Amino acid sequence: MADKIIVLNLGTTSFKCKLFDFARGERAIASCAVERVGAAAPSPWQFKASDARQDGLAPCRDHAAAFHLCIGLLQDHGLIRSLDDLDGAGFKTVHGGPISGAVPVDDAVLAVLDEYAAFAPAHNPMYAALMRQLRAKHPALSQVACFETAFHAGMPAYRATYGVPYAWMTKYGVRRYGFHGASHSYIAAKLRDLAPDARRVISLHLGGSSSLCAIKDGKSIATSMGATPQSGLFQNNRVGDFDLFCLPRLVAGEGSLDRVMDILASASGFLGLSGVSNDLRDVLQAADAGNNQAALAFAAFVDNCIGYIGMFTAYLQGLDAVVFTGGIGLNCAPLREKICQHLDYLGVAIDPKLTTGKISTTNSKIAVWCLETDEELMVARQTHNVLGN
Amino acid sequence: MADKIIVLNLGTTSFKCKLFDFARGERAIASCAVERVGAAAPSPWQFKASDARQDGLAPCRDHAAAFHLCIGLLQDHGLIRSLDDLDGAGFKTVHGGPISGAVPVDDAVLAVLDEYAAFAPAHNPMYAALMRQLRAKHPALSQVACFETAFHAGMPAYRATYGVPYAWMTKYGVRRYGFHGASHSYIAAKLRDLAPDARRVISLHLGGSSSLCAIKDGKSIATSMGATPQSGLFQNNRVGDFDLFCLPRLVAGEGSLDRVMDILASASGFLGLSGVSNDLRDVLQAADAGNNQAALAFAAFVDNCIGYIGMFTAYLQGLDAVVFTGGIGLNCAPLREKICQHLDYLGVAIDPKLTTGKISTTNSKIAVWCLETDEELMVARQTHNVLGN
Repeated sequence: MADKIIVLNLGTTSFKCKLFDFARGERAIASCAVERVGAAAPSPWQFKASDARQDGLAPCRDHAAAFHLCIGLLQDHGLIRSLDDLDGAGFKTVHGGPISGAVPVDDAVLAVLDEYAAFAPAHNPMYAALMRQLRAKHPALSQVACFETAFHAGMPAYRATYGVPYAWMTKYGVRRYGFHGASHSYIAAKLRDLAPDARRVISLHLGGSSSLCAIKDGKSIATSMGATPQSGLFQNNRVGDFDLFCLPRLVAGEGSLDRVMDILASASGFLGLSGVSNDLRDVLQAADAGNNQAALAFAAFVDNCIGYIGMFTAYLQGLDAVVFTGGIGLNCAPLREKICQHLDYLGVAIDPKLTTGKISTTNSKIAVWCLETDEELMVARQTHNVLGN
Repeated sequence: MADKIIVLNLGTTSFKCKLFDFARGERAIASCAVERVGAAAPSPWQFKASDARQDGLAPCRDHAAAFHLCIGLLQDHGLIRSLDDLDGAGFKTVHGGPISGAVPVDDAVLAVLDEYAAFAPAHNPMYAALMRQLRAKHPALSQVACFETAFHAGMPAYRATYGVPYAWMTKYGVRRYGFHGASHSYIAAKLRDLAPDARRVISLHLGGSSSLCAIKDGKSIATSMGATPQSGLFQNNRVGDFDLFCLPRLVAGEGSLDRVMDILASASGFLGLSGVSNDLRDVLQAADAGNNQAALAFAAFVDNCIGYIGMFTAYLQGLDAVVFTGGIGLNCAPLREKICQHLDYLGVAIDPKLTTGKISTTNSKIAVWCLETDEELMVARQTHNVLGN
């Protein structure tokens, strides 16, 4: 029985974990989040369990320190006695190139995380570093990598193909992979429960990082992110789809390719366009106050979503349901309204008073949903399966 | 009266011109094409007029030499006595950044062609060089630049916007422009004559270079090419839409950014994917003979077209007509059939026996057309207007 699974979700400077005990059901029994990992100042952390909430500050020089901080909190709250109580650690890994799905962490997995670090620079290096540290210090802890690309691995080969030299596909792994697989697969499964007749679904996972997914009969057949999580919709501070033949001019103007790539990965998206913030809430507030750049950023994002919905409707050959999820998807009513208003030509109609569950009117030809996602549960389930439940 | 207009269409190693005499109608009275301009060996040329056809070989070290070769042929055939007979020269120019529409060639136009050469390296330098040579040698000849971006200039600002730093739009001219404006605007005008009720139209200009355009009430509201003609659908040997965060890995593997950009601009698209040819006819033949790479290239191109049709249907909020034009659009029936078959969910049905004019069945909910385009006529008309008809 491998029932106690800890799920680890790493960002450049963030660390989140959730503890699952499948003997007690599919709900996480505790969660812990640490921000500003690696900063000189102590890092703020938050802990939640069914009957406890706690926060504080602690020095966290790296993700391993954040991990041990969280383990300590789980011990303090009596949820585990030691690391030995954990049956496994599931990592919400991003880019494994040719390795996808859920796989035990071994040398090949670590090598591929290194190899594809350039495709996912904000994630792969942190995962590889933590895996190596935990392997060295806690060799008995079973590690499982659950790649975000897995849900999209069945997309048709011709759709995953860029117009590049054929040899680059194997030599450099240049193809469309897609990400947010844990979230989109959760939505696909959830909607099959809620609306089994909805065979053609578009899932909009909109948040700090955003993507759309076209789901046919429960399977991903297209998604907006391509070879890397920096493509597709523009993001909080990342560029999204862009014309790479702008680069020679940008490199000449900005001085180096590294600098241009850095701006495209960290000073673009909502932040770069609006000049206000990487947070859509701030952007919308500024737009409402008359800031034209902020209004442009919002309008461009909405239009981008509409374009992908149209593209995916063609790939799906029709549309039965649209699902909004993620922080922006669930909480930004103006965004949902703008998108659904534009889609009235398809017979889409939502009730603006509704904000959770099915938000479309009874007359709407296409069902529109607001559903909470649960990425960590999907990672926990996959880890549980790999370790043998 | 400025009735005799010569239209000039330049590629890296090609030169085409057509002579119009608006006093005699809107049909070109002669055309001349030179290939392999700049090659060491003599360049093959072809001349056509209503009552004459001729071809041959002549040394053409640059586009100016090709121009003078064509002028000589027009004189030989009695169509002009000298350059003084020409009322103006209209250039089918590609990228003018902030300068669009049809404008007399002046220092500002030449400067902007230079400035945006990095965005259109296969075209801008050739146009600027020829304009300067003709200015120096034939200062009396009125030159008009008719930019391919003009038809798309009215697309909504939010749709023309990438998720880049706001300042880059003015500093580097980074925005979606769109190209093939002469062709798409011709199709828009032609279809308004043929089917005035078709308010929402998608034009597919598919050829050596390909793009789609969404046309609402005769105006472009979206197009597949973005900041440069290297984006959108993949092309004969160019990459089209791609994820630029692949670049660091590609640059590390291939040795330099220049080399990677060169491969993406000349050894990609149909050529790179199929490994067979940059010509779709050869690719299809290879696919029919069992070549998997060639079959993948064809399937990816079809899928790409379908995706853009879906995206543009959403932007147009519905679809009344689809128009195929360009060499591939008019002559590649298997491509049209694959695309239209996929669109049967919209009620699209074509009669495979039809190959020109309206090719949809009488029951089709959306009209499908095959229409010859006439880019040079649009350039001639614009030039005629600028010079005062």
